Amino acid sequence: MRIATFGWGGQRRVGRLSTDGTELTPLALGDRARTRGALALIEALAEGREMPAAAGPRLPVSAVRLQAPLPRPRRNLWCVGRNYRAHAKELAGTIFSGDEKPIDRWPIVFTKVPECVIGPGEAIVLPGRSISEQIDYEAELAVVIGRGGVNIPASRAMDHVWGYTIVNDVTARDVQQRHVQWDLGKSFDTFCPMGPWLVSADELNGQDTRVRCWVNGELRQDGATRDLIFGIPQLIETVSRGITLYPGDLIATGTPAGVGMAMDPPRWLKPGDTVRIEVDGLGVLENPVR
Amino acid sequence: MRIATFGWGGQRRVGRLSTDGTELTPLALGDRARTRGALALIEALAEGREMPAAAGPRLPVSAVRLQAPLPRPRRNLWCVGRNYRAHAKELAGTIFSGDEKPIDRWPIVFTKVPECVIGPGEAIVLPGRSISEQIDYEAELAVVIGRGGVNIPASRAMDHVWGYTIVNDVTARDVQQRHVQWDLGKSFDTFCPMGPWLVSADELNGQDTRVRCWVNGELRQDGATRDLIFGIPQLIETVSRGITLYPGDLIATGTPAGVGMAMDPPRWLKPGDTVRIEVDGLGVLENPVR
Repeated sequence: MRIATFGWGGQRRVGRLSTDGTELTPLALGDRARTRGALALIEALAEGREMPAAAGPRLPVSAVRLQAPLPRPRRNLWCVGRNYRAHAKELAGTIFSGDEKPIDRWPIVFTKVPECVIGPGEAIVLPGRSISEQIDYEAELAVVIGRGGVNIPASRAMDHVWGYTIVNDVTARDVQQRHVQWDLGKSFDTFCPMGPWLVSADELNGQDTRVRCWVNGELRQDGATRDLIFGIPQLIETVSRGITLYPGDLIATGTPAGVGMAMDPPRWLKPGDTVRIEVDGLGVLENPVR
Repeated sequence: MRIATFGWGGQRRVGRLSTDGTELTPLALGDRARTRGALALIEALAEGREMPAAAGPRLPVSAVRLQAPLPRPRRNLWCVGRNYRAHAKELAGTIFSGDEKPIDRWPIVFTKVPECVIGPGEAIVLPGRSISEQIDYEAELAVVIGRGGVNIPASRAMDHVWGYTIVNDVTARDVQQRHVQWDLGKSFDTFCPMGPWLVSADELNGQDTRVRCWVNGELRQDGATRDLIFGIPQLIETVSRGITLYPGDLIATGTPAGVGMAMDPPRWLKPGDTVRIEVDGLGVLENPVR
């Protein structure tokens, strides 16, 4: 099942994508629920409610405006750092070279604010050179939690996964580094493109898919989630240790090698660029840079 | 003006405290708004609405149950690390001794999830020894943002402060340290006692007040916010750089010297302990440990 949040007739809707991906069936969610996009659906399903009925005829995807599937997550997104070995290695030549700790024992987990989420096609807005001159992309598979819980063991973690989406963990590298803790450099307005929709876990094996990223058509990142240092079950076990997870929580699983910072010389995002991320079985998330 | 969120007659209410601190006047907020506690009031005032009228007779404070003034903040709380020189110094002898960076150029900013907020008198629940054996207290003055904004200069930052409350930034030190990024070790369920109420900025000078913390009656922390390395205006400028702040956002300003981790040997919180925090001009926040 693929679920999209979209604008149509001046209102936010949630709909189910047809098998061929060309049409959307709007779902019957209350007026208030709809404003929260697919988050309202994920919560309703987690409470054991039935899948809502269709609320009108199918619409061509080309006629609507796709929005971020979870337009405003209920709290900061969980994000994972240095979770592909090749990416951890490429950082050794950067401003992060002094920060190394053994990476194989515990994942690095930080957050991004919910309000920096934007949808497919929306612009990543550079904050101005006086604030940061080092804006970078990070293509990532993000896990969407369905059933909540605390102290979830890895062995049962996949039962808590509703599905997946794509996240671009846009980062101001200079800001990320200078504050020791990364949340600020990860949370600038517009720094979390998300989409194009959600895919349920029965349709996509998030533990074995391909994550690619192009900037202006040039392939920069090409990774496979089977190469994650900490796999999805381990990440859910880690984040839920002592911390209750809720339906709609997002865990961005980390980015493969090929970020702009690791190039020689580094290649930062600039106005007019386009970042395109594709995750096999999920779709394409493309955003211009302004 | 002091604003409390409290339970009375099985419902959550928001009220204004009398000058002598013994009575509460419930405020006329809508049924839905009330469930969000004083956050609904802060948002309404930021939109330019009038202070709500009284919604019933005064109640004795002793007859109600005080709750966290912002029972669930709109997103993760912003928190500041190593923001008192004496505290930064005491960490040199701890597990954080290897992590030193110059502390005077940029503040360290991390987050805590909104769902770990608890109210006055509620129990800080230890997560169990298999999850963490090193639970510590951190008494802090927290700033409550009134009017939102982005790229707020320090010179105008105080115009965006609605007021203040007390936060106990409870921390699992081992978890904080091993994940490199601190958010996990700061976000365990019940790890953010908050209260006893909000005090508006016209009644308390948050830039010059005293922050003390006792564990089982023993004074452990005794600091003054005039000793903050990064003062409140600088913190607001830092956090709002490229990141829009919203009414009700919280910035916990950091903790003075005297945390349990820095003692020799370290003294961790244990079941049966009581942590009592007092900020002059604000009041007392006391929580048992279970």
